[in-house]
Amino acid sequence: MGQAGCKGLSQSLLDYKTEKYVIAKNKKVGLLYRLLQVSILTYLVVWVFLVKKGYQDTDTSLQSSIITKVKGVTFTNTSELGERLWDVADYVIPPQGENVFFVVTNLIVTPNQQQKTCAESESIPDALCYRDSDCPPGEPVVAGNGVRTGRCLRVGNMQRGTCEIFAWCPVETKSRPTKPLLGKAEDFTIYIKNFIRFPKFNFSKTNVLDTKDKAFLKSCHFGPENPYCPIFRLGSVVSWTGSNFQEIALQGGVIGIQIEWDCDLDKAPSECNPRYSFSRLDNKFSENSISSGYNFRFAKYYRDGAGVEFRTLMKAYGIRFDVMVNGKGAFFCDLVLIYLIKKSHFYRDKKYEEVSVLQDGTPDAEEAAAGPGLAEQPEAQHGGGSQKENGPARIT
Amino acid sequence: MGQAGCKGLSQSLLDYKTEKYVIAKNKKVGLLYRLLQVSILTYLVVWVFLVKKGYQDTDTSLQSSIITKVKGVTFTNTSELGERLWDVADYVIPPQGENVFFVVTNLIVTPNQQQKTCAESESIPDALCYRDSDCPPGEPVVAGNGVRTGRCLRVGNMQRGTCEIFAWCPVETKSRPTKPLLGKAEDFTIYIKNFIRFPKFNFSKTNVLDTKDKAFLKSCHFGPENPYCPIFRLGSVVSWTGSNFQEIALQGGVIGIQIEWDCDLDKAPSECNPRYSFSRLDNKFSENSISSGYNFRFAKYYRDGAGVEFRTLMKAYGIRFDVMVNGKGAFFCDLVLIYLIKKSHFYRDKKYEEVSVLQDGTPDAEEAAAGPGLAEQPEAQHGGGSQKENGPARIT
Amino acid sequence: MGQAGCKGLSQSLLDYKTEKYVIAKNKKVGLLYRLLQVSILTYLVVWVFLVKKGYQDTDTSLQSSIITKVKGVTFTNTSELGERLWDVADYVIPPQGENVFFVVTNLIVTPNQQQKTCAESESIPDALCYRDSDCPPGEPVVAGNGVRTGRCLRVGNMQRGTCEIFAWCPVETKSRPTKPLLGKAEDFTIYIKNFIRFPKFNFSKTNVLDTKDKAFLKSCHFGPENPYCPIFRLGSVVSWTGSNFQEIALQGGVIGIQIEWDCDLDKAPSECNPRYSFSRLDNKFSENSISSGYNFRFAKYYRDGAGVEFRTLMKAYGIRFDVMVNGKGAFFCDLVLIYLIKKSHFYRDKKYEEVSVLQDGTPDAEEAAAGPGLAEQPEAQHGGGSQKENGPARIT
Repeated sequence: MGQAGCKGLSQSLLDYKTEKYVIAKNKKVGLLYRLLQVSILTYLVVWVFLVKKGYQDTDTSLQSSIITKVKGVTFTNTSELGERLWDVADYVIPPQGENVFFVVTNLIVTPNQQQKTCAESESIPDALCYRDSDCPPGEPVVAGNGVRTGRCLRVGNMQRGTCEIFAWCPVETKSRPTKPLLGKAEDFTIYIKNFIRFPKFNFSKTNVLDTKDKAFLKSCHFGPENPYCPIFRLGSVVSWTGSNFQEIALQGGVIGIQIEWDCDLDKAPSECNPRYSFSRLDNKFSENSISSGYNFRFAKYYRDGAGVEFRTLMKAYGIRFDVMVNGKGAFFCDLVLIYLIKKSHFYRDKKYEEVSVLQDGTPDAEEAAAGPGLAEQPEAQHGGGSQKENGPARIT
Repeated sequence: MGQAGCKGLSQSLLDYKTEKYVIAKNKKVGLLYRLLQVSILTYLVVWVFLVKKGYQDTDTSLQSSIITKVKGVTFTNTSELGERLWDVADYVIPPQGENVFFVVTNLIVTPNQQQKTCAESESIPDALCYRDSDCPPGEPVVAGNGVRTGRCLRVGNMQRGTCEIFAWCPVETKSRPTKPLLGKAEDFTIYIKNFIRFPKFNFSKTNVLDTKDKAFLKSCHFGPENPYCPIFRLGSVVSWTGSNFQEIALQGGVIGIQIEWDCDLDKAPSECNPRYSFSRLDNKFSENSISSGYNFRFAKYYRDGAGVEFRTLMKAYGIRFDVMVNGKGAFFCDLVLIYLIKKSHFYRDKKYEEVSVLQDGTPDAEEAAAGPGLAEQPEAQHGGGSQKENGPARIT
Repeated sequence: MGQAGCKGLSQSLLDYKTEKYVIAKNKKVGLLYRLLQVSILTYLVVWVFLVKKGYQDTDTSLQSSIITKVKGVTFTNTSELGERLWDVADYVIPPQGENVFFVVTNLIVTPNQQQKTCAESESIPDALCYRDSDCPPGEPVVAGNGVRTGRCLRVGNMQRGTCEIFAWCPVETKSRPTKPLLGKAEDFTIYIKNFIRFPKFNFSKTNVLDTKDKAFLKSCHFGPENPYCPIFRLGSVVSWTGSNFQEIALQGGVIGIQIEWDCDLDKAPSECNPRYSFSRLDNKFSENSISSGYNFRFAKYYRDGAGVEFRTLMKAYGIRFDVMVNGKGAFFCDLVLIYLIKKSHFYRDKKYEEVSVLQDGTPDAEEAAAGPGLAEQPEAQHGGGSQKENGPARIT
C-alpha cells in the first residue's frame, strides 16, 4: 500500500466521520419514537432538574458544634443519704455540656470506703472459700474488689465464707434499688444548642431563635409552634423513642438524638430548618438479657482530719444521650451554570458552522443510498432538524 | 417463517454487526472534527490524568489520634478566692488531653454550699412570692435551685419575697464578672499531637518533628518556618478565627481547629504535610443574643471534720476547642495499572485481528454504497486509522 | 425553503430515525463478536450481580452505641503512697464508660500541694537565675509552674538557683518511674458492648450473646469459640497491635479498637457478625522521639480542718483506647426489583410493538443497501434477534 496508503491516511485525517442513520417514514413508529424522546426529556427536566435539583451544588462537609445544658432539681430522702437535693452539678456527668452526656437516675452508694482489709462480697464466685488455703495471699480476686490477704472469713458456724481482701473497704454489697432513686428526672429539661456552618457556601445557622428577649429560653418548650426553642423534657424524649421512662431510669440506657439539616440554600434562610429524631441506642428488646442497661462506677475522694483518704463509691445507672448532627446544603451554582451557558453558545456556534458547510457543499450526499420505504434522512433535515432535536439528548 | 427463520437466526448468530459510518470529505468540517477529538483527548490526558490524577487509588479511611496538652499558669487576686495561681490541672476540663477540651477563662464561684434551707435567688421568676401559700411545699422551683419548703421569705418590709427552698445553700447569686478572670489565658499554649495512618497504603505520619532534641518542643512555636511544631498560642488561635480574645474569654465560645492531610503518596513522605485551619463554631454574629456564649456548672466536693459534705459550685465560662482531622491519601496503584496495560494489549491484539480479517476478506464492501460528494469511508482507513483514533473517545 | 421546509419538518417529526448497521457475514469475526458479547454478559452477571451483589441496596448510615467497662484490681506498695489498692474508680478516666477511655498505668504523684511560695523546678530552663533581678516579680515562668515573686533561691553556696514562685507548692519534681506502677494492668479486662442499627432496614444487633445466663459474662473471654463474648484482656489487646505492654505502660500510648459490621441482610441475622481489629495509634516507631507516649496531669482537691484547700497532683501515663465502629448493611431491595421488572415488561411490550410495525410495513427496507460480502442485517433479525441480544448491553 506504501505511498498511496500514506496519502490516503493524510487525506482521511481531515475527513468528518458521522454515523449513518436510517429514517423509517412510518407514522406509528415515528410517534412512538418521539413519545419516547419526549418522555426521556420530561424525565430529565422534571425529575433530575426540578425534583432532584440536579443543577445545585451540594456541600456535605458540615461544620457543627453542640452545647448541651440540663436543668432541674429533685429531692430524695433515703436512709443512706438522708434528705438530699440533687442539682445539675450532682447528676450530669461529665459536666462540660458536650454532645454526649449522662444523667444519673439511679444509684448504689457505698460511703466511707478506706484502704484496709475486709471480707469480699459473697456475690463474687472467685472469692468463695472453705479454708485459708483457698485464699492465696497477694492474688487478686477475679472480677472482685481487692487482693487476697490469705485468710478465709466465715460468719458464725457457716462452712463457706469469703476470702479476706485488701481493698477499698467496706466493699459494695447492696443491689440495685427496685425503684429509680431519681425517678423524677422525667421532668428535667435538656437544652441543645446546635450551630452549623456550610463552609463551601459560608452559610451558618443555629437551632435557637435569634432573639434578645432573655425570658424566651426560660419559659419556652419545644413543639410544633416553637421549633426554635430546643428545650426538651427528658420524659418526652424517652417516650418518643418508644421506651418507658421508669424502666430506663431503673437500669439505664442510651438514647440518640439526631438533628438533620437538609437545606436548599436557594430558598430563604428561614426555610433551612432542623429536623429532630430520637431513638433508643441500646438493645431494649432483650430487657432481661445480661447485656441490657447502662451503669458505671465513680468515686468522690475526701481526706479526714488526720489526712487519711476515704471515698464515696457510686454505681450510677442512668441515661446517656448522644446528640448527633448531620446535614447537607444545596446551592444553585452560578459559576457552573454560567460556564455551561458559555460552552453551549460555543458549541451551538460550531454546530451551525458545520451545518452551513454541509448545506453549501454537498446537499444530496446521503440520498443516493436511500431505500424505497425507509428513506435515508434528507440532508437539510439531518443537519438542521434532527441535530437540534437530538441535541439535548446527546448532552445528557 | 419456520425452518428458514431458524436457519437465518443460526447464521446471523455469527454475523459481526457494526455501525455504518458516513465520511464527509470536506476539509473545514474534517478539521473541526479532528480539533474536537484532540481537545477531548487533551482534556482526558491533561485534566483527568495529570491534574486530577485519575490513575491514583485513594484512601479516605483515615485513622487518626489526637493528643492535646495545654500549658501556662496565671495568677488572680479576687476578694472571693484571695491570691490564687491557676495551672493546667485547675483550668482544663476534662484533663485527659482528648480532641475536645475546655479552657476556663471566667468563673462565678459559690463556695461552701451545704444541703440546707435558704431563700431562692431573686432572678428566678418562678420563685417570687407574696405569701406562704405561693410556695407549695415539696414542689421544685422551675429553672431554680431547689425544692420549696412552704415558706415565703421577705426581706425587711418588702411585700415581695422569694420562696424558701431546700437546696445547696447559699444559692448562686452573683452575675458574670465584666472582665474575664483568666484574661491572661491569651498567652497559654496548646500542643496538638496528631498521628495519622492510611491503612490501605500502610503509611503513617505525625505532625510533630521526629527529633530527639528534647529542647525543641520546649522552645518552638508554630509558624511558617516551624510547620512541624504544633504549639499554638491561645490568643493567636482566637484571632485567626476573626474573634476578639477578651470577648470570647468573657462569655465563652467554641473554636474548631481543623487539620487536613491531603497526601500524594507518590511523592516523598516529606511532601505529605498537615494544613491547619481555625474557625469559630458558635454564633459570634449575634453577640447579644440569648444563645451566645458557652458556660457550664460543676462542683468540687469536700467533707468537713464532722463528715458533713459541702461543695464549691463553679459556673465556668470559657473556650471549647474541637480538634478535627480529615484527609485522604492517593497512591499510584500499580496493580490496577498493570491490569489495565495487560487488558489493553489483549484488546489491541483483538482489534488488529478483527481488522486484518476485514482487510483480507471483504476489502471493498462499503464502497458500493458511497455517494458522490460524501464518500463512505474506505475500508483500510476505516479499520485502521479511525478505529485507532476513535479508540480513546469511545472508552470515555 | 419556506413552505416546503416547513412541511418537510412536520413530516420528519414523525419519522423514526435509527442507526444503520453493517453486517459482516464472516464467521471468525462473528464468533469473536459474540464471544465479546458473552464475556461482557458473563462479567455483568457473575461479577456485578453475583459477586458484588449489585442488586442489593446498601445502608451505610450505621447507628451505633458503645458502652465500655474495665475490670480488675491491682496492689502497689510505694514509699510515697504506702500500701494501696487500685480499682476501676481509681484508674479509669473518664469513668462513664464511653467509647474513648484511659487506663492509668504509671503515675507521678505530688501530694499535699498548697497555694504558697516555693522554688521552681530546676528542670525548667526559664526559671534559672543568678540574682533576684533575673526573677521579675509577677511574671509567669515559661512552661513552668507559677508566677515569679522576685527572689532568686540558691541552695547552699551554689551560684545558680531557681526563681521563687507563687504556685501549688511543692512543685512536681520527680521524674517518670522506670518501671510502670500499675504494670499488672496487663491482666485487667475490657468489656465492650456495641449495639448497632441499620435504620433503613430496621435491623439491629449487639456484639454480646443474647442470653439470660448471668454467669456467662462473668467467666467468658473473647476468642474464636466465643465471638459473642467481647471481653478482652488488656495485655492481649496490646500484643495484638504488635506492641510490648510494659513499654506502652511505662510511657503511655493510644490504641484503636475497630469493630466492623459488614452485613448481608439477605442471609440469616446470625451471619451478620462483628469483626475486631486492633492498631496502635501513636507513633511507636520513634520510641525515643520527644513526641512519643501519652500523659496528662490532673488533681484531686481536698480541704483541711481549717478550710484551706490542698490537692494531690497526678501526672498519669497510660493507655487510651479509642473504640471505633463502622459498617454497612446490604439488603435485597424488593421494591427496586419489582419496579425494574415492571419497567422491563413495559419496555418489552413497547419493543415488540415496534417490531411488529416494522415487520408489517416495510419488510425489505434495509436490504436495498446491502453490499456483496457485508450484507446489511435482514429486518426480521434486526428487529427481533439483535435487539434482544443487544438489550442487556444497552441497559448497562
